[in-house]
Amino acid sequence: MRLLVVHGPNLNLLGQRQPQHYGTLTLAELEDRMRQKAHQLGVELVFFQSNHEGELVDVIQREGAQADGIIINPGALTHYSYALRDALEAVGKPTVEVHLSNIHAREWFRRRSVIADVVMGQVAGLGWRGYLAALEALVSTLRDEGRP
Amino acid sequence: MRLLVVHGPNLNLLGQRQPQHYGTLTLAELEDRMRQKAHQLGVELVFFQSNHEGELVDVIQREGAQADGIIINPGALTHYSYALRDALEAVGKPTVEVHLSNIHAREWFRRRSVIADVVMGQVAGLGWRGYLAALEALVSTLRDEGRP
Amino acid sequence: MRLLVVHGPNLNLLGQRQPQHYGTLTLAELEDRMRQKAHQLGVELVFFQSNHEGELVDVIQREGAQADGIIINPGALTHYSYALRDALEAVGKPTVEVHLSNIHAREWFRRRSVIADVVMGQVAGLGWRGYLAALEALVSTLRDEGRP
Amino acid sequence: MRLLVVHGPNLNLLGQRQPQHYGTLTLAELEDRMRQKAHQLGVELVFFQSNHEGELVDVIQREGAQADGIIINPGALTHYSYALRDALEAVGKPTVEVHLSNIHAREWFRRRSVIADVVMGQVAGLGWRGYLAALEALVSTLRDEGRP
Amino acid sequence: MRLLVVHGPNLNLLGQRQPQHYGTLTLAELEDRMRQKAHQLGVELVFFQSNHEGELVDVIQREGAQADGIIINPGALTHYSYALRDALEAVGKPTVEVHLSNIHAREWFRRRSVIADVVMGQVAGLGWRGYLAALEALVSTLRDEGRP
Amino acid sequence: MRLLVVHGPNLNLLGQRQPQHYGTLTLAELEDRMRQKAHQLGVELVFFQSNHEGELVDVIQREGAQADGIIINPGALTHYSYALRDALEAVGKPTVEVHLSNIHAREWFRRRSVIADVVMGQVAGLGWRGYLAALEALVSTLRDEGRP
Amino acid sequence: MRLLVVHGPNLNLLGQRQPQHYGTLTLAELEDRMRQKAHQLGVELVFFQSNHEGELVDVIQREGAQADGIIINPGALTHYSYALRDALEAVGKPTVEVHLSNIHAREWFRRRSVIADVVMGQVAGLGWRGYLAALEALVSTLRDEGRP
Amino acid sequence: MRLLVVHGPNLNLLGQRQPQHYGTLTLAELEDRMRQKAHQLGVELVFFQSNHEGELVDVIQREGAQADGIIINPGALTHYSYALRDALEAVGKPTVEVHLSNIHAREWFRRRSVIADVVMGQVAGLGWRGYLAALEALVSTLRDEGRP
Amino acid sequence: MRLLVVHGPNLNLLGQRQPQHYGTLTLAELEDRMRQKAHQLGVELVFFQSNHEGELVDVIQREGAQADGIIINPGALTHYSYALRDALEAVGKPTVEVHLSNIHAREWFRRRSVIADVVMGQVAGLGWRGYLAALEALVSTLRDEGRP
Amino acid sequence: MRLLVVHGPNLNLLGQRQPQHYGTLTLAELEDRMRQKAHQLGVELVFFQSNHEGELVDVIQREGAQADGIIINPGALTHYSYALRDALEAVGKPTVEVHLSNIHAREWFRRRSVIADVVMGQVAGLGWRGYLAALEALVSTLRDEGRP
Amino acid sequence: MRLLVVHGPNLNLLGQRQPQHYGTLTLAELEDRMRQKAHQLGVELVFFQSNHEGELVDVIQREGAQADGIIINPGALTHYSYALRDALEAVGKPTVEVHLSNIHAREWFRRRSVIADVVMGQVAGLGWRGYLAALEALVSTLRDEGRP
Amino acid sequence: MRLLVVHGPNLNLLGQRQPQHYGTLTLAELEDRMRQKAHQLGVELVFFQSNHEGELVDVIQREGAQADGIIINPGALTHYSYALRDALEAVGKPTVEVHLSNIHAREWFRRRSVIADVVMGQVAGLGWRGYLAALEALVSTLRDEGRP
Repeated sequence: MRLLVVHGPNLNLLGQRQPQHYGTLTLAELEDRMRQKAHQLGVELVFFQSNHEGELVDVIQREGAQADGIIINPGALTHYSYALRDALEAVGKPTVEVHLSNIHAREWFRRRSVIADVVMGQVAGLGWRGYLAALEALVSTLRDEGRP
Repeated sequence: MRLLVVHGPNLNLLGQRQPQHYGTLTLAELEDRMRQKAHQLGVELVFFQSNHEGELVDVIQREGAQADGIIINPGALTHYSYALRDALEAVGKPTVEVHLSNIHAREWFRRRSVIADVVMGQVAGLGWRGYLAALEALVSTLRDEGRP
Repeated sequence: MRLLVVHGPNLNLLGQRQPQHYGTLTLAELEDRMRQKAHQLGVELVFFQSNHEGELVDVIQREGAQADGIIINPGALTHYSYALRDALEAVGKPTVEVHLSNIHAREWFRRRSVIADVVMGQVAGLGWRGYLAALEALVSTLRDEGRP
Repeated sequence: MRLLVVHGPNLNLLGQRQPQHYGTLTLAELEDRMRQKAHQLGVELVFFQSNHEGELVDVIQREGAQADGIIINPGALTHYSYALRDALEAVGKPTVEVHLSNIHAREWFRRRSVIADVVMGQVAGLGWRGYLAALEALVSTLRDEGRP
Repeated sequence: MRLLVVHGPNLNLLGQRQPQHYGTLTLAELEDRMRQKAHQLGVELVFFQSNHEGELVDVIQREGAQADGIIINPGALTHYSYALRDALEAVGKPTVEVHLSNIHAREWFRRRSVIADVVMGQVAGLGWRGYLAALEALVSTLRDEGRP
Repeated sequence: MRLLVVHGPNLNLLGQRQPQHYGTLTLAELEDRMRQKAHQLGVELVFFQSNHEGELVDVIQREGAQADGIIINPGALTHYSYALRDALEAVGKPTVEVHLSNIHAREWFRRRSVIADVVMGQVAGLGWRGYLAALEALVSTLRDEGRP
Repeated sequence: MRLLVVHGPNLNLLGQRQPQHYGTLTLAELEDRMRQKAHQLGVELVFFQSNHEGELVDVIQREGAQADGIIINPGALTHYSYALRDALEAVGKPTVEVHLSNIHAREWFRRRSVIADVVMGQVAGLGWRGYLAALEALVSTLRDEGRP
Repeated sequence: MRLLVVHGPNLNLLGQRQPQHYGTLTLAELEDRMRQKAHQLGVELVFFQSNHEGELVDVIQREGAQADGIIINPGALTHYSYALRDALEAVGKPTVEVHLSNIHAREWFRRRSVIADVVMGQVAGLGWRGYLAALEALVSTLRDEGRP
Repeated sequence: MRLLVVHGPNLNLLGQRQPQHYGTLTLAELEDRMRQKAHQLGVELVFFQSNHEGELVDVIQREGAQADGIIINPGALTHYSYALRDALEAVGKPTVEVHLSNIHAREWFRRRSVIADVVMGQVAGLGWRGYLAALEALVSTLRDEGRP
Repeated sequence: MRLLVVHGPNLNLLGQRQPQHYGTLTLAELEDRMRQKAHQLGVELVFFQSNHEGELVDVIQREGAQADGIIINPGALTHYSYALRDALEAVGKPTVEVHLSNIHAREWFRRRSVIADVVMGQVAGLGWRGYLAALEALVSTLRDEGRP
Repeated sequence: MRLLVVHGPNLNLLGQRQPQHYGTLTLAELEDRMRQKAHQLGVELVFFQSNHEGELVDVIQREGAQADGIIINPGALTHYSYALRDALEAVGKPTVEVHLSNIHAREWFRRRSVIADVVMGQVAGLGWRGYLAALEALVSTLRDEGRP
Repeated sequence: MRLLVVHGPNLNLLGQRQPQHYGTLTLAELEDRMRQKAHQLGVELVFFQSNHEGELVDVIQREGAQADGIIINPGALTHYSYALRDALEAVGKPTVEVHLSNIHAREWFRRRSVIADVVMGQVAGLGWRGYLAALEALVSTLRDEGRP
C-alpha cells in the first residue's frame, strides 16, 4: 500500500514559526516519525510540500492517482482553494485532512475548510500525533476494504 | 492514568441506526475495542452514556474532575449545548472531541461545534477508529507532560 | 395499530397558560378527545409528557421503536433540540409534528423547527383540532401502506 | 356554511408532475374527496384554480368576501406573493393554508410562506389528506364560533 | 399635460379594508379629489387599477409611453415586482411612487421598494393627501422643464 | 397653528453643494417659499438649522413641544441618530420627514431612516417641492383633526 | 423537432428600450434570425411573449409539454417567479435560459435566477447571438439523444 | 413575601471555576448573603440549583407558581433554552435575570439571552452583589404593587 | 468617595415621556433618591445631563478622571456612540451602565450597547431602582478594593 | 483574427473526472472541435492550460494583449481569483467565460463568479458545445465591430 | 498653501490614554512635529480638535472651504458619522484620513470607515509618523496639480 | 538596514493599465523613486514582483526572514490569500501594506484585506507617494527601536 502525504504553504517552516500553534518539531522530523510508523504498518509513503497551489494540484493529479490514499494538510489553502478541492474530488481517493492546531479554536476564517466535504475525515489540534492517527486510521480502513 | 469517555444522546443506538453514517459496531463493541487499546497503553477508562444533557454535565463535573483527560462525543448536543461546553471548560482537563461521521460533510447545522474551542482537538469521520486515534494521541500527550 | 403521542416542555400547563395562544383545554381533556377519536379509528395511543429533553429522547427510542407512528408536539424544544431530531430520525417511524398555535405567525424564533425535515408533515395553528387531524391523517396513511 | 377552496399555479397538473412530492391523485379527484367530506359535514365548497396571481387575488376579493372561510394552497406563490397575502388579510376570513408536500423539508426557498402570518393555521406534508384535515378543522372552528 | 395614475393589487378595496392603515376614502372618492386638483392645475389624468401584474406592465407600456408622467401605488407589488420596475424604467417617464400608509413603519418586508431607484421620488404615510402632493409636485416639476 | 421646521447637518450649505442631488435653491430661498405657502394656509412656521445633534434634540424638546406639528430633514443624522428619534417620539407631535433627494436611489446607507417608524410619513426625491407638499399635507391633516 | 421559445415581461419592447443593455434589434427581427437558423437546422419554433406570469405558466404547461425543448428568457421574472420555475420543472423538458445582457455584471438582484437550477444551461451577455447559440446547442444535444 | 431563586448548570461549581469571571465565593456563601439580606427585608427565599434543564422547568412551574417573584441565573441555558423561557412566561411572575459576569463583554454567544424579553430586568457583571441588587429591587417593586 | 452620574439625551424629559417605559419619576426626583442613598453610604455624587454627545465626552474626560467611579445611562447614544465608549475606556474608571427600561425586550436596535464591553456591568429594566442598585454595588466594589 | 483560449486548474483531467458533470471528451478532443470550427470561421486559436493561477495571469498579460478576444474557463479559480479578474480587466479584450457544467445548479460556492462582471458574457451548462457557441458569438461580435 | 488638520473625539487625551494603541506623544507634541515638517515644505497648517461632531462639521464647512486640502483623524466618529462624511463631500477638498493605530487589526467595528470613500486616501497604524506621511503626500499631490 | 519590497499580481503592468486607478508611472520608475529615497535614508532595498502566489510566499520566507522590514502591495491577493498572510505572520517582521488606489472607495470586495491584521499599518490611495511614505515611516520606526 502506498499513500501520498501532502503539505501546503508555509509548512516548510514547521518548528520555526509560532511554536504555540504548531509545536517545535521540524517537517523533516515529522516525516521521520511518519516513516517509522509506516514501516511498522508495512506501507510506503510519498511526501510532498509546496507553497504553490498549482504544484499541489499537479502532485495530487499525478501521484494521488497512483496512491491508495492521501493525507493532506493544506495549510492556509484549506480555507479558500477550490482548485485543491476539485483536484481531490477528481482523483477520488480516500483522504484524511490533518491540521496541527485546533483550527476550530482560532481566527474565524480558519473554521471553514473548503475540502472538508470531499474528504473521509478530519483530524485537528493533535499536533504531530494527528498525522500518525490519520495514518493508522487510513491504513486500517483501506485494509478492511481489502487493499494490501 | 485514568480517562473519562463520554457518549451523548442516541449513541446508545450505535450499530442500529443509519449505518451509512455511523457504521455497524454497537456501543458495547466500540467500548471493548477501546478497553483493549487502553490495556495495551496501560490506562484505565471510565465510560458513560446518557441522553440527558444534565447527566452529562453532572458526570463531567464529578468524574471528569478526577480523570486525567476526557474523550467526548456529545452527539447532537455538539451543536447547541453551551452547558456542556461550560462544564468542560470548568473542569479544565485535556479533552478530545470525537465524531463517528464527518460532521463537516453533512447538514449545515452539524458543521458547528460549540465545544470545539474549549477542547484540545477534534477527530471526525474516521468511524470507531477515531476513538482509538483520540485515545492514543491523548495518552501520548499526557505522558509527554509527565503524567503517569 | 399503536401510536406514540409525545408532548414536550410546558405542555403539562395546557389550559392554564396563555389561552390566547393555546386555548382553554387541559392536557387531560385533549388526550381524552384523542382517545375517543382513536377508539373510533380502532387504534391504540400511548401518551407521554415531559419537561426533560433526555426523557423525551428515551421514550422515543423505547416506545417509538415499538409504535407504528408518532405524533409529537415538542414545545419549545422544536426550535433547538437536535437530540430529539436525531432520535426521531433513528427510530425512523412516520411522524407528524403538531403545534397548537400558528408558530409561523409569532416570534421569529418559533418559525424554525429543527425536526421539520425528518417528519412526514406538520400541522400548526389548528389548536386541539390539529391533534385529531394529525391522528386521522397518520392512521389513514399507515392503513394505505398496509398496516393493520 | 360556504367555504372557498383556492389552488395556485401548477396545481392543475396534480397527479401528473413529480408524484414523489405531490402524489398521483388529480386535482379533480382531490376535489371529489373534499366534496364528499363537505357533504358529510353539511357545508358547501367553491373551488378555484389559476396560474395567474391576479385572478387569485380577484377571486379571494369576490368569492372570499362571501364565504365563511378559506382553504388555500397558493403553490409557488406561497413564497413571494405579498399581493395574495394582502388580499387574504383584507377579506379577513378564517383561512387554512395547505401544502401537499412537507415544504419544510425541501429547497430552502419553500420554507418561507409570506401568507403564514395572516392565516389561522398551516397543514403541510399530509398529501390530499391535508385538505380533508384542514376542512374538518376549519368547519369545526367556525361552528364553535356559532356559524351555521 | 397628461398623467397616468396606476393603482396595484387590492387598492380597489380602498375604504373597505384596514382603515387604520388606509383610511375610509374609497378609490372612486380618491380619484375624484385627484381629478379636482388636476382640473385646477390644468392637466388630464388617466386612471388604471388592476390586481394583475401583467396588466399593470401592459398599461405602463401602452399608456405610460403616451403620458408626460406617472403616479403609481403598486400595492404589495412594490416589494417584489421587478417586472413592474423594468416597465417603468423602459418607458422612462418621470414617476412618483405613492403609498397611503407609512411603509417604513410596518412589517419589515414593506420597507423595501424594488421600484424606488427608478422613480423620481416617493411619498409615504400621508394618506390620500399623498396623491395630491405627488400630483402637484410632479406637475410643477414637469412645467419647470418646459412641458405644457 | 404653528409648525416647527428642522434642518439637520450640512443643510446650511443648500444650493452650494452637489446640485445634482440637492438643487440650486439656498436654504433661505427654500424657507421663503415655505413661508409664502404657510401664509396662504394661515399657519406660522418656526425654522431651525444646526450641524449639532444635541441642539436638534434640544430644539425638538423645547419648540416641538409647543408646536402643532413638525417637518424635519435630519440630513445625514437620518441614518444613525437614535437620540433624534427618541426626542421626536417623546414630544409625540405629528411629524413629516422630508428628503430633497431620493434617498432610496443612492448609497445603500441612505436607504435606512432610523426615525421613519416614529413619524407620520416621509417625502423623498421631490426637491424643495417636497417641503411644500409636506407642509400642505400636514396642515390639512391637523385641521381635519380639529386643530385651528 | 419542435422547440418552444418563451419571452417574458417587457421583451416586447426589445430594440426600443435601453439599447446599451439590450441592443437595437426588435423582437420580430430577433425571431426572424432564430427562424432562419432553425430552418437551417431543420427544426420548428413556436414563439410566445407575455407580460403576464400566469400566461407564461399556461403556455409552458400547454405548449412546452408538446415541444422537444424550451428556450426561455423570463425577463425580470427570472429573479422571483417560483411559479415559472415549478412549471418548467413539471413539464421536464430540456431548457436553455437566455439573457441578452450580462446579468452577472448589473444590479445585484439580477445576479440571482430562481430557474437556474432546473434548466440545462444558461447563456448571458451575448445579445441576440445568445439565442442562436442556445438554439444550436439545444438542437445538437437533443439530436445526440436520438430525437429527430 | 416569598421568592424563588434559581441557579442553572455549573453554578454548583461557583468559587471553584474561572474566578476571573465568577469570583471566589461559593454558591453556599452566596446564598447565605442573600438569606441575610432577605431577613432584613422580611422576605423568604427558596433556593434551587440544577444542571438539568427539565428540572429547572419543573421547579419554575411548581415553586414559581407559588412564589411572588423569581430571581434566576440560568447559566449557559440563558443562550438557548426556549423551554425555560416558556416556563417563565407561563407562570408569569415578576422575574429578574442575574449574571455574575458581564455577559455583554465576553464571547459573542453569551450576548444573547433568550429569556431577556420575558423578564422584568437584567443585572450583569456585578458579581454576587448583583443578586443582592436584584433582590432589593424586586422586593421594592412588589411592595409598591401592594404585595406584603 | 466621589462618583460621576451621567444622563444622556432625552433623560431630562424623565417622568414626562412614555411612562410605560420610563416611569413617572422626574430626573430631579430620581437624583434626590440617589443623593439620599449616597448620603447613607457616605459618598458624594456629581450629576450631569446633556443631549449633546460632545458634552458627555467632555464631562467624562474632565469629571470622570477625578471620580472614583461612573454610573451612566447614555440614553439612545448607547446604541451608536463609539465616541462615548472611547471616552469611558480612556478614563478607565469602574463604570456601571444603567437603563430604566428592559432594553433587551424592546426594539431590536435597543438590544445592542456599544459601551457594554468597556463597563463593569449593566442593570436594565429595574426603573429608578436600577440606579440605586448600581450605586450600592459600585460603592461596595470600590470599598472592597480599598477606596475610602 | 486571433483568439486566446484559456483553461484553468484540473481541466487537463477533462474526460477522466466526474463525467456526469464534465462529459467524456478529453481536452485534446475539445480543442480539435474548436480548431475545426475556427477553421470554418477563418480565425486562429491559441490554447493554454495550467493549474497555476500565476501562469494563467502571465499568459493573459502576454498572449491576451496580442489577441483579438479571449475565451476562458477558469475552473475553480472562477470563484475566488481576483488576480485573474484584474488581469482580464487590465488587458481589456472582449472575453467570454465558459463553464462545461451548469454552475448555477451545483454547490452554492460555484454560483459566484468573480470575473463575471469584467467579461462580455457567460455560457454555462452546455458542455463542449458551449465552447463552440462562445467562439461563434465572439467572432461574430468582433466582425461586427470591424475586426478582420 | 494652507491645510486644515482636524482631530475628532478623545484625541485631546493623546499620550495619556492607551499608549499601546496611540503612543506617548501628546497632541501638542504631535502638532509641533507637523508644524516643523510644514515649515520645511513651505505650507501653513490650521489645527482643530473637538469632541463635538457638530463643531467638526462647522469647522470643515468654514475652514475647510478656505483650505487647499484636509488631513483628518475623526477618532471614533470614523465609524458612524455620516454628517462628517457629508461635510467632507460638500467642501470637496482633497483629504487624507489618518489613524494612529491600525484600525484594521482591532475590534471589528473599527474596520469600517464611513468617510473612506469620499477621501483621497487613508494612512493607518503608522502612529504620529502617519500624519507626517499624509502631510508630505498631500502637499506633493497638490503641488503636482499646480497649487502653490 | 535592509528592506524587502514585494509587488503582487499584475503590478508588472503598472503605468499601462487603468491609469485612473493606478497612475502612469511604470513599476521600474516607481522602484527608482524608492531607491533614491532609500539612498537618502541610508537603507538597502530588495525588490520582487510576481504573479504567482507561491513565489511570493517563497520570497517572503527566504528574503523576508533576512530583512529588517517588509513593504508589500499584494495586488488582488490582498483580498483572499491567507497563504500570504501566514507567511508574513511566520517571518514576523514589521510590515507596511501599500495600495496605490483607495481600496476603501472601489468595489466592495476590495475593502477587505486578509493581511491587514498581521501588519503594522496600511497606506492606501496616495499613489506612488504611498510607497515613499511607507518607506520613511518604516525606517523611522525601526531606527527608534535601535536597528541600524
